[in-house]
Parts: sequence; structure tokens; C-alpha cells
Amino acid sequence: MEEPTIDQIKGASERITPFIHNTPVLTCEAINERCDRKVFFKCENFQKVGAFKIRGAANAVFSLDEKEALKGVATHSSGNHGAALALAARWRGVESHVVMPKNAPRVKIDAVSEYGAKIYFCASTLKAREERLEKVIKETGAAFIHPYNNTRVIAGQGTAALEFLGETPELDALITPVGGGGLLSGSAISAAALSPETVVIAAEPEGADDAFRSFKSGKLVPSVDPKTIADGLLTSLSDLTFSIIRKYVSDIVTVSEEGIIRAMRLVWERMKIVIEPSAAVPLAALLEKGGSIPGKRVGIILSGGNVDLSSLPFSKLN
Amino acid sequence: MEEPTIDQIKGASERITPFIHNTPVLTCEAINERCDRKVFFKCENFQKVGAFKIRGAANAVFSLDEKEALKGVATHSSGNHGAALALAARWRGVESHVVMPKNAPRVKIDAVSEYGAKIYFCASTLKAREERLEKVIKETGAAFIHPYNNTRVIAGQGTAALEFLGETPELDALITPVGGGGLLSGSAISAAALSPETVVIAAEPEGADDAFRSFKSGKLVPSVDPKTIADGLLTSLSDLTFSIIRKYVSDIVTVSEEGIIRAMRLVWERMKIVIEPSAAVPLAALLEKGGSIPGKRVGIILSGGNVDLSSLPFSKLN
Repeated sequence: MEEPTIDQIKGASERITPFIHNTPVLTCEAINERCDRKVFFKCENFQKVGAFKIRGAANAVFSLDEKEALKGVATHSSGNHGAALALAARWRGVESHVVMPKNAPRVKIDAVSEYGAKIYFCASTLKAREERLEKVIKETGAAFIHPYNNTRVIAGQGTAALEFLGETPELDALITPVGGGGLLSGSAISAAALSPETVVIAAEPEGADDAFRSFKSGKLVPSVDPKTIADGLLTSLSDLTFSIIRKYVSDIVTVSEEGIIRAMRLVWERMKIVIEPSAAVPLAALLEKGGSIPGKRVGIILSGGNVDLSSLPFSKLN
Repeated sequence: MEEPTIDQIKGASERITPFIHNTPVLTCEAINERCDRKVFFKCENFQKVGAFKIRGAANAVFSLDEKEALKGVATHSSGNHGAALALAARWRGVESHVVMPKNAPRVKIDAVSEYGAKIYFCASTLKAREERLEKVIKETGAAFIHPYNNTRVIAGQGTAALEFLGETPELDALITPVGGGGLLSGSAISAAALSPETVVIAAEPEGADDAFRSFKSGKLVPSVDPKTIADGLLTSLSDLTFSIIRKYVSDIVTVSEEGIIRAMRLVWERMKIVIEPSAAVPLAALLEKGGSIPGKRVGIILSGGNVDLSSLPFSKLN
């Protein structure tokens, strides 16, 4: 697997634009005041399947040749990537197979199922996932579309920043959350090519700080028993995303669980939009560790909006 | 008090446009499928103070002559109108006085306070509110801006439909929630003038169905001990709004509490936007009583987005 080029990201954009939303960029005066800067939010919570993940999945699925595609696609995912792959496969008219941990949020299981994927449940360890997936691929011949250790997936995720930087020039900093690193590395390649003066920063929960520790130590540290409400950020970096991140990302900032919930509530209350905890992590970084983030014009990618409304965290505050 | 003309609504629009948002009109494929029609949502949840109420309040405050304005403005309100009046008064640089029931939602009390109003708490009866307000007006000489029994307020509320119908032509039906009837009557005057083929329908909670009963009986029935989660719709019609509604509104449809919560959840989950229960009432009508609502292109005004995130109703479902 190789690092995607900016041309591959532009190619991905052309390939997926007929299917996905060019999501709006919103601002909020109350948040600008609170952060003492101008903050621009790229709203991937409004994206198809409610998350940026459809960008990478759609690019990967539509990049397969006819013969590969006919055998379907498969992946393991705690949620948004699975739903995205299922929808992209439906668009192309092929089967999808998704291995999910039994403890994945109900709303995400429902979405994967609704988009027509075959779901295979497994224990919530990396080993269990990989074994189950291997079995599925052996049986079906489906193409494995990894959630982030995949050049085409990363190229697809990079299209969000491509749109963002095109519409919102002169950002001093661009912050994304980091889980496996697909969104972060795609965004970083886009920013390096299109807006080299923009500093790219990742935000990560303290309770799942493997990317932070990897970045600081220079060695890939796997995520072991992560604990965070940001359920989209539990996974480890891959060799591919880590190498891109080391090359293009300026810093990784960690945030507290309470900071994530407060940032999420601020967005819900003031912007009146629904974002998932993972999407609140960059704003939490700006609020908790603003000193680490340079500049007066800051872009944030709101990565998704899939939450279980029956069990929200807000009553834990105050 | 007289019924505002369409020219007064257009005048209000010019007067308040520099201050308010021309809110977006959104659509949602999943909701279109569920309703088997094309539904357009005018998003007043994104409006200043999080509700359409700023339109009427701003029009009323900026319509006062200099001498009147200097004495400030006063009102009673369970929430959104109070916040709106406070902000409009701040824009004009005058004082505002807001009488609120002690049991008003915390988030709404905070908003009124944050915009700089003086708050006077009272019991949650109409009588207690009116007596407290009378005292405030006597002491201050402030101009009373009634939440809906006021020509200029109704003209302001009518500007939402003015924008909506201008941007979204050929609506077969336009549905608004009805509480005191300011939004409904302003919308109905706009629709009658600009899009006479559009049927205007009001949606109301079963547990606060005074407008429904008034409309069906032809006599103004006051709201007595209303019980609904839609806390913006607890008030009674006024003589003025009732007369406008009888003249221009085609029907009033009532909905169940569970229907309101389900509609609210559908909007949050599928559109990823935050709306308050009152704003979900029209969609609840479309989902529960679709047979009463004609046409394939239906417009809904999402009246506001101010909810207390610490006590949401979703866990009551399923």
C-alpha cells in the first residue's frame, strides 16, 4: 500500500462526487467568541451515512475492476465504515460483508444492516475481527476494503479537506480527529498540496492516545484497551497512515472525556446540529489546549453525526 | 390590534433582515420516503436565539418610535419570545423586562438572562403572569410586546413564510405548529398573498388542543391545564390570531405525545439537526395524520431548536 498522491485524491473526488454530498461549511459566533478565533466546521455529519467514511468506501468500491467487484466487498468496522461500505456496494450493485464487534452501538449496527450488508458478529478484539474476516473472504472471494490501511480509502477521505480548503481559504490550522488515521492522513496530503501554509493537527481522546504516543515516540504504539466515549476513535494507526502522519502532521493533541462531552454539547446547543462524540474531539482540543493550536482561522472536520439518542452523555455534566 | 397586511410583512422583512438569518430550507430523502412526498423544512432552529420568535420581536422593537423605545420593552414568555425580545432590545440599545414562569426550562431562562433582560419570576398561571407584568410596566413605563397578540409581532413572524415561499415555490401545503398563533397567522397571511394555491394547516399537540377546539367550534376556547412535551405550544390563541386563523387557515390537526417524540427523533437522526419538541409537531402530523394533509410538496416551518439536553425524551421510546 502506498501513500495516495494529490492527483489520486482529485481523481477520487471526481469519482465519488455524483454520489456524495459536498457538505456545507458552517460557522457559529458563540463558538468563535469562546475560542477567540474564527472556526470553520466542515459538516461531514450531514454526509451520506452520517459520516465522512462514505468518501473512502465509495472511492475504493468504484475503483475495483468489474471482475473484482462482482465478488463483493468485505470489511471489519465498529460502525461508520461498515455502513459506508454497505451503501457504496449497493450503489455499485454488489454484495457487502461486514464483520462487527458485538458491542458496537445499536444505531451503527442498524445502519449497516439497513444498507443491505451481511453482518458477521465477533468478539471486540482485533484478533477476533481479523479471523472472522479472513473466513468470510475465503468463503466469498470478496475484496477486503480496510477502513484506513488502504490507499484508495485514504484518497477518498482526503476529498473532504479538498472541498474544505477550496471553499475556505487561508486556514491557519486544520484539525481532524484521529482513530485509524484515514481522515487525518488524507486531509494532511490535501493540505500539504493545496494549502502548505495550513498546519495540520490531530485531536485524540486521552483514553485512546495511541496515535499521540506513536507520534511522540516515533514508533507505532498499538491501541490497547482504549476507553473513550468517542467510539469512532478506538482503533490503532496502520503502517501506512502512521508514515503519512509523521510526514505531514504538525502535532497531535489529547483531550479529556469531559472536554469531549462539553464540546459536543456546545455544538448541539449553539449550532443546533447533531454530531457524534468523535466529531467533537477537535473542538475539545481547541477549548482545552488552545495554546497548542496556532492561528486565528481554524478549520475543523466534524467527522460524523451517528449517535444513539437513547443514551446521551449530557446528563453527566453539571 | 389589526391583522397585518402583506405589505406590513414585507416591511418587517426589510426592517429585520440586517439582524436575522435567512435560514436554509433543507430536505431529507429518508423523510421523503417515510412520508411519501417531498417535504421542505424551513430551519428556524438555526435562527438567532434558536427560534423564529426573533422575527416578531425584532420587528416590534425596531418599529417603536424613539421616545417609546427609550423606556424599554416588557413581556411575559415561557421562553423563546423572552429571549428574542431581550436580544432585539439589546440590538436597539434599550432595556428589556421579561416575566417568566418559575417552571420554564432552564435552557430558556439562561438564554433570556444571557441576552441581558431583567427577569421577574411568577407562578405558571396566566393570571400570575399578567399581574406581575402589569406591575413591571407600571414601574418602568416599558412598552408591552405581547408574544403574539400584536400586529407587528405577527408581521415579523410572517417573514419566515415570506422567505420560504419565495425560495420554495409550488408548495401544496404549508404546516406550522400552533401555540398562541403568531407564527401560524403570519404564515397564513403570507401564503394567502404570495401562494394562494398553498393550503395552510396547523399542527397541535392533543394535550394542548385549544386551537383545534376553537377552530372546530368557531369560539375561542382557552387553554386550560395543557399537558405536552411541546413547551412552546402551551398558550391560548388571542382574539387577533384566532380571527386571522379562521380566515386563512384550512385545518388544524392534532398529534399524540409519542408522535411528537418520534418525529423529533426522526429529524435528529436523519437530518442531524437539533429541533425542539414544538418544532416536531408538524412532521408528527404528516406521519400520524398524513391523510388530512393534501399534496405532494409540503413545507414545514421548524420553529425552534432550544432543548434541555440534560433531559431528553428519547429513552422513553422503544
